Amino acid sequence: MASSTSSPSSPSPPEVPMELHAANRRKLFDLFRDHLSLSSRSLHGFVLLQGGEEQTRHCTDHIELFSYVMRQTLQVSVSTLNKPYLRIWKPCIILISKLGSEIHLISYKASETGRYMNRWATRQESYFAYLFGVEGPGFYGAIDVATGESILFAPRLPADYAVWLGEIKPLSYFKEKYMVTSVYYTDEIAKVLHGQYQGPGKPLLYLLHGLNTDSNNFSRPADFEGIDNFEKDLNALHPILTECRVLKSELELALIQFANDISSEAHVEVMRKTKVGMKEYQQESLFLHHTYMYGGCRHCSYTCICATGDNSAVLHYGHAAAPNDRTLQDGDMALLDMGAEYHFYGSDITCSFPVNGKFTPDQSLVYNAVLRAHDAVISSMRPGVNWVNMHKLAERTILESLKEGQLLHGDVDAMTDERLGAVFMPHGLGHLLGIDTHDPGGYLKGAERPTEPGLRSLRTSRELLEGMVITVEPGCYFIDALLLPAMENKQTSKYFNHEKINRFRGFGGVRIESDVYVTCDGCVNMTKVPREIQEIEAVMAGAPWPLKKTSISHANGET
Amino acid sequence: MASSTSSPSSPSPPEVPMELHAANRRKLFDLFRDHLSLSSRSLHGFVLLQGGEEQTRHCTDHIELFSYVMRQTLQVSVSTLNKPYLRIWKPCIILISKLGSEIHLISYKASETGRYMNRWATRQESYFAYLFGVEGPGFYGAIDVATGESILFAPRLPADYAVWLGEIKPLSYFKEKYMVTSVYYTDEIAKVLHGQYQGPGKPLLYLLHGLNTDSNNFSRPADFEGIDNFEKDLNALHPILTECRVLKSELELALIQFANDISSEAHVEVMRKTKVGMKEYQQESLFLHHTYMYGGCRHCSYTCICATGDNSAVLHYGHAAAPNDRTLQDGDMALLDMGAEYHFYGSDITCSFPVNGKFTPDQSLVYNAVLRAHDAVISSMRPGVNWVNMHKLAERTILESLKEGQLLHGDVDAMTDERLGAVFMPHGLGHLLGIDTHDPGGYLKGAERPTEPGLRSLRTSRELLEGMVITVEPGCYFIDALLLPAMENKQTSKYFNHEKINRFRGFGGVRIESDVYVTCDGCVNMTKVPREIQEIEAVMAGAPWPLKKTSISHANGET
Repeated sequence: MASSTSSPSSPSPPEVPMELHAANRRKLFDLFRDHLSLSSRSLHGFVLLQGGEEQTRHCTDHIELFSYVMRQTLQVSVSTLNKPYLRIWKPCIILISKLGSEIHLISYKASETGRYMNRWATRQESYFAYLFGVEGPGFYGAIDVATGESILFAPRLPADYAVWLGEIKPLSYFKEKYMVTSVYYTDEIAKVLHGQYQGPGKPLLYLLHGLNTDSNNFSRPADFEGIDNFEKDLNALHPILTECRVLKSELELALIQFANDISSEAHVEVMRKTKVGMKEYQQESLFLHHTYMYGGCRHCSYTCICATGDNSAVLHYGHAAAPNDRTLQDGDMALLDMGAEYHFYGSDITCSFPVNGKFTPDQSLVYNAVLRAHDAVISSMRPGVNWVNMHKLAERTILESLKEGQLLHGDVDAMTDERLGAVFMPHGLGHLLGIDTHDPGGYLKGAERPTEPGLRSLRTSRELLEGMVITVEPGCYFIDALLLPAMENKQTSKYFNHEKINRFRGFGGVRIESDVYVTCDGCVNMTKVPREIQEIEAVMAGAPWPLKKTSISHANGET
Repeated sequence: MASSTSSPSSPSPPEVPMELHAANRRKLFDLFRDHLSLSSRSLHGFVLLQGGEEQTRHCTDHIELFSYVMRQTLQVSVSTLNKPYLRIWKPCIILISKLGSEIHLISYKASETGRYMNRWATRQESYFAYLFGVEGPGFYGAIDVATGESILFAPRLPADYAVWLGEIKPLSYFKEKYMVTSVYYTDEIAKVLHGQYQGPGKPLLYLLHGLNTDSNNFSRPADFEGIDNFEKDLNALHPILTECRVLKSELELALIQFANDISSEAHVEVMRKTKVGMKEYQQESLFLHHTYMYGGCRHCSYTCICATGDNSAVLHYGHAAAPNDRTLQDGDMALLDMGAEYHFYGSDITCSFPVNGKFTPDQSLVYNAVLRAHDAVISSMRPGVNWVNMHKLAERTILESLKEGQLLHGDVDAMTDERLGAVFMPHGLGHLLGIDTHDPGGYLKGAERPTEPGLRSLRTSRELLEGMVITVEPGCYFIDALLLPAMENKQTSKYFNHEKINRFRGFGGVRIESDVYVTCDGCVNMTKVPREIQEIEAVMAGAPWPLKKTSISHANGET
């Protein structure tokens, strides 16, 4: 009964093809073997990943959405410490070393800024999800580097699981569902991998260890009972697997497109129902409901940012300490940054519009500055284009518009040299998108991060490649903490029309964000929301979306 | 504009009185000093609690809803180990001891089954929330045992927080908002508490350490830089603070009542919109939307259980591996266990009904068996009544109904002795409810847990006290894993009408759950949903809720 599972205009939630993950595994297998061959290394061993664990809320038995708890106690006996002893130990990593007669016990710290993360979370770990597509917690997955065979290890569930949590699926169920070569229990990992290994010496495990350049956290290598009887390589896997994720397959694109379609539709729904006097969280609730009810999206890619009025200048508004709880006022701009996730793959979309449905001239000025930047970037995107240059293009376009609008005066080149763009757009232009909202791979190993204001916030400085999905999200904000110092600074004060700029303090900000797929010779905007001012005003006045040719004039006539 | 923030029938989200938490602190202060006086202990020192921390999703920078990350590396130098050395160390607890020439490093394990939990979670830690009511992460709170003064310690936020996460509030903002005596930064804890301490010796800290008898996890004592210069007491605080939470104040009851009101209304909304052909998750989405849109409830007390058909026999259905994804079939029963949370205080409500809106005779038989048990318990509840006896009353009422319905035959007393009730109701009758869905305090220290089937699942065996809020949630399920062994068992086989029982295999189950407040001489059911079969059928046929006197006959006439 499609009518009850979808709104009249909604796409139905698509079937999830597990072939997607089988293809992801083949892609890794091929690239990984190429890498080993190039380094003249043996084509033996296993890629081994550990999936996520569910968690409870503090000391209670409230289980966050995701499922059962590991109760393990480790005991480590350290009798000889002639060399430092490293132990991966749930829930932490420790390094023990002996200095003279003293024992030093140090939390493992893989870089100056990084740390290992917990394996407990409210959703599957992303690298594991990429390769195996498993929703539930407590799994491991391996790929045999010699044969390409894939092995899933499922948790052995206690008998009363059937009473409390549901049917205990036989291993054959997982084998068929996830299209893997074989399935065993997690307590059989050591035995199975030893049995299957054909190479010389101890079996070699390629474990996931590497820096997430967005969070500065390290992904956490798999650990299991008996791992000490394996050789371990912590370096080879992460860069190759990350690069696999950077370039999306057709099947991955289809899921990202669906997440975009249902999220775009939900944004339109929210625009239409927005009224002065509402609470921001009601916009969030409308979005969440539309994407879950009609799109089957249980998770969002990130916490919804529903920022109105001055809050729209707070880039990551919406968190627990600023929980979308303002009442919408007549004359406010709304900046809504919301994206649903479908079978791990996300979307990330921002719409900005006046809550009363009609742009003022000041709102139009700022909005169109950002829209011009958004459109200019998308018109320029194609393989080989450098993302830092796209960021600069967006900045320049915004500065030119602000100059035309008489908020700024002077030479735009000089403003750019002074990094004035970062006063209005302190964040980066956009980021890779996929299973993570900030998908990994933004900086290749050794790549230097820009250090200048604005540019240093870029989550990638790479050249675009066919198959990347990247957000284009220019913004223009009036943030006192950035604006006032720049207006007072001797070097930059001269660019500002102080009187006019002061009128915009308290305006908040505008961000326009679309998800863009890089093709062989250009790009495709996957996000389908009203962008032009007359489109937004027409849709908010009740016109259907997409607009029919006559809708704009009709809706305008009505209002 | 109330019209846009509430549905015509909805209550508005109430103001949250921070006086509630001030009163909670006073209650603890008085009881704690009584306890110290009785043990002839000095009335000096500080109760110190640490609030929750936000978390990221695995290694990514995806921040689960709740806010900033602790980046701390501990370094412990262990030079002398003549006695075992215990160190509370984020993110784990370690015990180091020297046995002869060997160093042993052991994860701290406070009981055979328990473990410390992470401090990272998606919501504030419950004990901290109880005393201080703070939503955001990264806080500590203290109560001066000598004076009753309350001190909040707020995280010192970096300057760029203002750009990304919002205005940096001055300390005076928190002092006023949370009605505490004073506010400092978390990096000043040691200095402030040393300065304020008037007692002899090192200042004494009463830290929270104790077993959660539902999760078998231990609450985690506060930890901060400089804690080594304080005396610590890990025993006194937990039982007293837990008992404070067991007995609800009027202000607490008002929030639990609101959570019940909005959740009751949402259950009715879901009943009305349920149609054959829908997905279970659409019922979840309708519930979540109604409680957030009209009640401002951003969190639920627990993951929604939307179980239809055979799934309704899975007691904790709805988790990631069983994610409410079945399509509703004509003839199914639905068992929907869903409750919203408002300012930390929760509700926990289950409704069971046929998805097509009309009960069959078999469905009526099982439903009324459970309803009779639900009503019998509520009619008997008053201070002094033992909860184990209430559980047995529910079991007996269900067994009697099943006997009347000819699913069972024989002597009900004998069935009770054989624990046959636990075949149909393997879970406990209900649990304390408050800031946690399974609120702590179910077993007083030293209390023995029952060991018999069914009874051993009870989350409390206490006598009822005025001020307790407890769920009454009898159920009757047809679970092969329990039913088949009992039907084959020589001792119990004789009670079953095998032919008739077999007709019910695949039926699933029925649960009816209300939240009940114990008064001085009885109790009040805080949950307001249709319970009688004719009420449910009328509401599903479109009658208003609460029913008007004439609605039942009218609606019945229509169908």
